[in-house]
Amino acid sequence: MTRLEQQINFILEVDKLKGIVRQNYLTDGSRKEDDADHSWHLALMCALLSEYANEKIDVLKTMTMVLIHDIIEIDAGDTYAYDTQANESKSQRELAAADRIFLLLPQDQAEEMRKLWDEFEEGVTAEAKFAATLDRLQPFLLNAASGGKSWREHGVTFSQVMKRNEVTPYGSETLWQYQYASMKKQAEIGNLIDE
Amino acid sequence: MTRLEQQINFILEVDKLKGIVRQNYLTDGSRKEDDADHSWHLALMCALLSEYANEKIDVLKTMTMVLIHDIIEIDAGDTYAYDTQANESKSQRELAAADRIFLLLPQDQAEEMRKLWDEFEEGVTAEAKFAATLDRLQPFLLNAASGGKSWREHGVTFSQVMKRNEVTPYGSETLWQYQYASMKKQAEIGNLIDE
Repeated sequence: MTRLEQQINFILEVDKLKGIVRQNYLTDGSRKEDDADHSWHLALMCALLSEYANEKIDVLKTMTMVLIHDIIEIDAGDTYAYDTQANESKSQRELAAADRIFLLLPQDQAEEMRKLWDEFEEGVTAEAKFAATLDRLQPFLLNAASGGKSWREHGVTFSQVMKRNEVTPYGSETLWQYQYASMKKQAEIGNLIDE
Repeated sequence: MTRLEQQINFILEVDKLKGIVRQNYLTDGSRKEDDADHSWHLALMCALLSEYANEKIDVLKTMTMVLIHDIIEIDAGDTYAYDTQANESKSQRELAAADRIFLLLPQDQAEEMRKLWDEFEEGVTAEAKFAATLDRLQPFLLNAASGGKSWREHGVTFSQVMKRNEVTPYGSETLWQYQYASMKKQAEIGNLIDE
């Protein structure tokens, strides 16, 4: 197989990301979002909001990271952030998926993409921290815009969202301040349960 | 309204891109693709295939270009490439959409994104030519993978696809050679009508 054929095989395989349905709805509540929709949104947010990163980030690297960050869900599935049981086996399922999917690429790109995904998962670099901030902020914005549709379906509480967002300030204090103010409003109007 | 509020308004508005349905199916034929899915796929292809661009490209610029290239379809709708009548009014509808949507952003980003979209539409720079190549190759790959499902539904011919792909070689001779060989195969096996 030529280098280009390997790349095309990977590109066709990851088309399956469009079939992985997330828990949150689109802003208009019409349907749940798919993982490719979500990844597109994060990449665009990265292009527009990088000025708010706590540390200077490499925008191209961060955009590429968010484009591939959920590819492992093709095999591992989407694990709902507030499902405790599923989150216990998540890491193992996702590592097996990364081993299979990235290796469809030519070796140099397989290593590059795997390194980027590992970096995202570790959450230590400026790029990984900002990517995680966007990955929390985007579904929050959609949930709030849809009147908390997915939160209501799952009975999600303010303190659960707080816990889920522990990492959000590490990537951007400014975006976290915005989100925190908006979260309090969501609890006030009853979209989030405030115990 | 603060700068960040303007940016968030734009980010929420463009969520509608996920509701714009294209003519081509996903590789598994299960449903038609939405514009955000498509834009995600192009951005990832850009990260992986930029080595094949005829001229050296700025990858970050090209990725941002493909992330926003279809945003005008939120107002203007998706115009099927092989619908002659709809293509006559396309340009006017898309210009009005660009005037509305990009202006939701703070002025500097509104200008930057509008300039990038104009550049894509003009198709003159190395980045715009490569973006156009990806924008033709991606639905071709999906159509071929789905057994020509959308081509069959519309009775699309080999020569129509040739005409649609006049610009493809300008961005990448290598990707065009690959696609042309694959197109001939698609005609041979009857997925495309060969007059």
